[in-house]
Amino acid sequence: MKFAILDILEKKRDGKELTWEEMQTIVQAAQLGNVHAAQLGAFLMACHLRGLNEGEVENLMRAMMFSGRLMKWPSEWKQKIVSLQSTGSTGNKAKLILAPAMAACGVKFPILSARGYDAIGGILDKLRTIPGFSGIKSVKEIEQLLEDVGCCVVQQPSDIAPAEGVIRDMAAIAGTSDNDAFKEACMIARVAALKLHAIVIDIPYGAGEWVKTKEEAMSMAANLDRLRSILGIKIKVLVTAVDWPVGTMMGQSLEISEAMRCLSMCGPPDLHDLVIKLGGHLLHEAGVADTPEAGQQRVHRVIRDGKAKKMFEKMLKAQGVDKSDLKSLMKARKDPNNMSSVLPVANYFTHLSSGDKCGLYGSLSYVAY
Amino acid sequence: MKFAILDILEKKRDGKELTWEEMQTIVQAAQLGNVHAAQLGAFLMACHLRGLNEGEVENLMRAMMFSGRLMKWPSEWKQKIVSLQSTGSTGNKAKLILAPAMAACGVKFPILSARGYDAIGGILDKLRTIPGFSGIKSVKEIEQLLEDVGCCVVQQPSDIAPAEGVIRDMAAIAGTSDNDAFKEACMIARVAALKLHAIVIDIPYGAGEWVKTKEEAMSMAANLDRLRSILGIKIKVLVTAVDWPVGTMMGQSLEISEAMRCLSMCGPPDLHDLVIKLGGHLLHEAGVADTPEAGQQRVHRVIRDGKAKKMFEKMLKAQGVDKSDLKSLMKARKDPNNMSSVLPVANYFTHLSSGDKCGLYGSLSYVAY
Repeated sequence: MKFAILDILEKKRDGKELTWEEMQTIVQAAQLGNVHAAQLGAFLMACHLRGLNEGEVENLMRAMMFSGRLMKWPSEWKQKIVSLQSTGSTGNKAKLILAPAMAACGVKFPILSARGYDAIGGILDKLRTIPGFSGIKSVKEIEQLLEDVGCCVVQQPSDIAPAEGVIRDMAAIAGTSDNDAFKEACMIARVAALKLHAIVIDIPYGAGEWVKTKEEAMSMAANLDRLRSILGIKIKVLVTAVDWPVGTMMGQSLEISEAMRCLSMCGPPDLHDLVIKLGGHLLHEAGVADTPEAGQQRVHRVIRDGKAKKMFEKMLKAQGVDKSDLKSLMKARKDPNNMSSVLPVANYFTHLSSGDKCGLYGSLSYVAY
Repeated sequence: MKFAILDILEKKRDGKELTWEEMQTIVQAAQLGNVHAAQLGAFLMACHLRGLNEGEVENLMRAMMFSGRLMKWPSEWKQKIVSLQSTGSTGNKAKLILAPAMAACGVKFPILSARGYDAIGGILDKLRTIPGFSGIKSVKEIEQLLEDVGCCVVQQPSDIAPAEGVIRDMAAIAGTSDNDAFKEACMIARVAALKLHAIVIDIPYGAGEWVKTKEEAMSMAANLDRLRSILGIKIKVLVTAVDWPVGTMMGQSLEISEAMRCLSMCGPPDLHDLVIKLGGHLLHEAGVADTPEAGQQRVHRVIRDGKAKKMFEKMLKAQGVDKSDLKSLMKARKDPNNMSSVLPVANYFTHLSSGDKCGLYGSLSYVAY
């Protein structure tokens, strides 16, 4: 049964609960472009101001999840495919180290990046500062990368939860993306469509994060946990107080540089610790380590003995970075000043005030590379 | 100073009051197409759900009014240019009789029709059922029609308050047009840009009207009165209980037919009385009659002696209806069954239930011609 978009929109406007059929109708129309952008904008604002209840969030999530095909993985990878989602931009840098470290520990770790709207950009934007790096891959190519390397950083394929991308884009311009219900539904729709076996979701909270308070973070964690039980996949939610940027560098190519130092055991200790912590939980969830602590030891080991770094090189090569650039990059990795021979350097620099307290985010509102 | 659209949108989303500069920025962007439709839809929904205060309605009205040029009339017409606005669809039929009656009384009576979204359509849609009738006229042609005939029914020229049309269209698809503040701001922006000297605003309320209760109608009248004092033009607001359709016919060409019977003194008495009442106030506001009652007598006289009917013929001719069609139409005017030789007849008929009470709107939700 089809419902008229305007009726659905007006129903939500008036604070009434939408049914599964109504939610599905509007999500499908958004995906196919069968709804006027003004109606979609008005709908998103009505959802934002009126709120979505538990059932509506679940229906929104399902409608987006089933808007494309579901990923299928080789059966021998059972329980082995894990990934990390993070609500904060500071965690993104950790992913750059985590991906090769996880691959070095023998699990499959695809990072399927959604387009980033924050100031620094997503992890893919960072890797694209390396000449030749390509993140656009088909489902088939992603499978090949996981087979050959064990990790990859690619854009979410266009046939996986396509409606989710459309709705997320629209929410960003309609001023409604700063909304827990949307974020949760989008995050879980992606993970579910990707058919990951286990996922660790990192919810850092603090002044410079998307989630500001512990209460918000805990409520988000509870909602994600509820959605998890609906889907039956393993989700571990970590809620951590973060009142300062992880590591010492912010900006696209600067973060690549810091991640490479970390993979050579000469990065900042807080970043190293974060990677170890997240990785330990991931290995535990994937059944590779008996406890998160045992997992942590293993992650530390593959970083210390250079296996993770080798895996990072392998991944860059498999994703299009040519031999000579890779060689220059690896040679320069211990000295960020030498990175500029390969990575771009910003033309414009600005002083960022961190408010009263040294080292804290404080009044920081924008960062650039 | 320019403001970013997203900032303005988010400010309204969060329930904060918009400044004149912010309101002007978004109205201008809407007019020029410099804002994504999704943002405009989200903005309109945020305004609808958060509400607009008195100052914001005034700023919205002013921004739309000054979005194009202001009409200029010959100075010898001072105080003579009047018109009627109505919030209800049933009043539209009265306008068809009122326009020529006012012209017959010596005042200039332009009807500058806004696009109608209700089931029956606007007055222009009704007149367009007469072959040859043209309602698209430039400001120059409108002036000529008022000079030669004294009345006309035309589409609002595209250079008069253009932003108002854009915002009204968007509000209609975004499910936010059912909003007093928007309606008031749009109505007054049009009137003010048209530089009418006096205007009577009819607010019928009742089951089948746009305004449902007396309280709503009175509150709207008070708001319009407030906006009037800002503009310094004469506005008379009439609030009347209407629990049944005026006259006996509904539908585009049927209403033309009933209006013509009324101009021949053989239409339904309630329609005749409504025209007399509205016309009396209009003549009083224009300074042509000392009291509304004296005005009523005059309107009754020009209908009874056929002067208004002649004026209607003159207007149709001046707006493109050819001689032979006009002759057939006038010949058939006393017998609606003969109208079909000129006016179109619907191919599809449907039974309309009026609920329990005979003759009342009741459950009537849609009408068609």
